[in-house]
Amino acid sequence: MARLKVTVAYDGTDFAGYQIQPSGRTVQGTIQSVLQKMHKGEAVQISASGRTDAGVHAVGQVFHFDTEMNIPSDAWGKALNAMLPGDILIKDVAEVPDSFHSRFSASSKEYHYKLLVSKEPDVFRRNHMFHYPYPLNIRDIQKACGYFLGTHDFTSFSSARSEVADKVRMIFALELLEEGETLTFKIKGSGFLYNMVRIITGTLLEVGQGKRKPEEIKAIIAGEDRALAGKTAPAHGLYLYQVNY
Amino acid sequence: MARLKVTVAYDGTDFAGYQIQPSGRTVQGTIQSVLQKMHKGEAVQISASGRTDAGVHAVGQVFHFDTEMNIPSDAWGKALNAMLPGDILIKDVAEVPDSFHSRFSASSKEYHYKLLVSKEPDVFRRNHMFHYPYPLNIRDIQKACGYFLGTHDFTSFSSARSEVADKVRMIFALELLEEGETLTFKIKGSGFLYNMVRIITGTLLEVGQGKRKPEEIKAIIAGEDRALAGKTAPAHGLYLYQVNY
Repeated sequence: MARLKVTVAYDGTDFAGYQIQPSGRTVQGTIQSVLQKMHKGEAVQISASGRTDAGVHAVGQVFHFDTEMNIPSDAWGKALNAMLPGDILIKDVAEVPDSFHSRFSASSKEYHYKLLVSKEPDVFRRNHMFHYPYPLNIRDIQKACGYFLGTHDFTSFSSARSEVADKVRMIFALELLEEGETLTFKIKGSGFLYNMVRIITGTLLEVGQGKRKPEEIKAIIAGEDRALAGKTAPAHGLYLYQVNY
Repeated sequence: MARLKVTVAYDGTDFAGYQIQPSGRTVQGTIQSVLQKMHKGEAVQISASGRTDAGVHAVGQVFHFDTEMNIPSDAWGKALNAMLPGDILIKDVAEVPDSFHSRFSASSKEYHYKLLVSKEPDVFRRNHMFHYPYPLNIRDIQKACGYFLGTHDFTSFSSARSEVADKVRMIFALELLEEGETLTFKIKGSGFLYNMVRIITGTLLEVGQGKRKPEEIKAIIAGEDRALAGKTAPAHGLYLYQVNY
């Protein structure tokens, strides 16, 4: 029995999310059905670092699974990619100790949120960037970013549907990069609550529009109330970029 | 009665091509059904500069239609975009004289063909660039490009299914641009035969791989035989970039 750690990219557009469901095309379901074929019909359960919602993408999602099949790590990637559809790409497969767990062993995660700030939308990137045609004060957004850094209770920035008891998380880095008409928020933290990156992004966009002052972030965090923060930015701009161990 | 010239971008991924068909989602069918709604149920026929195949994209396709509706040109674009799906974007609407015809008035067309030359495919661009992981001799390709310029009979570079009698066309420009892992062929000509850009691209890639010498292009053109040229490059790398009048 070997435990394999797999790094995978996917385009979330045509998936009803990462997690397997009774109906609907999911990333987990698609990968598990390919693994089941490789294991001669035997069901294989994969375990990811976390779920992603419908429309959310991954550049470097990580999952693990156990197998009795004796295939070298390199060959696993090629075999899986040959059977998987074009919107899922296995990037790396590595053998890991039995103690490794894609979720519990993770030390930090990085998400990116991409915006297209052009006047006109772009038909070719409509599923991969949030089109935001309004003027933004970048300096104010950057100033507001600073207030998120460090260890805080992020109740205000998590969906009311979140069922986790402990909402304290640590944000290591949050920066906004400008490249022509593309803006990218890069956020790295110990872990993230449900919808946390999308609510942080939505709130920062309201700061950029002048609807909120950068300093208000402090009070929004302190208030521990979802109603204080801004709108949840749409799913299709979000990428699970990297999981660190 | 006014004649309107419309410039439109579309992502060809989810269309069975530009031209309306008895079944299958088409660009023409989608636009005509929106125009029909705007014209209170009356059918409106649109006429494009040419059709594009399933999977082929457009940055600047042009069509025209006649209408009795009295709407300013600017408002037409907004009204249409509000009703059209996200993979079609009206970029410009202008009133033109009755003598204007999107196909017959066109003086030249420009197509782009995009390749991703990275080792790994990119899940996010799989429908918008042809992934080509093999080494290419760019200098040889650029040398070969020169043989296409000018006026030639392009029988060798048109699909056997082409029904046009006169296969003489003039190529004004053909260049290959490198930007990181992206290669773009830009080709401009008086007009193009069925599959012509895709067969030229496929042949140039065989030159780049060393399977053919740049000088062979001359004999392939002179032979006037489709069997002499290379493979047809896939549809999803091709963009109708601009139609000039």
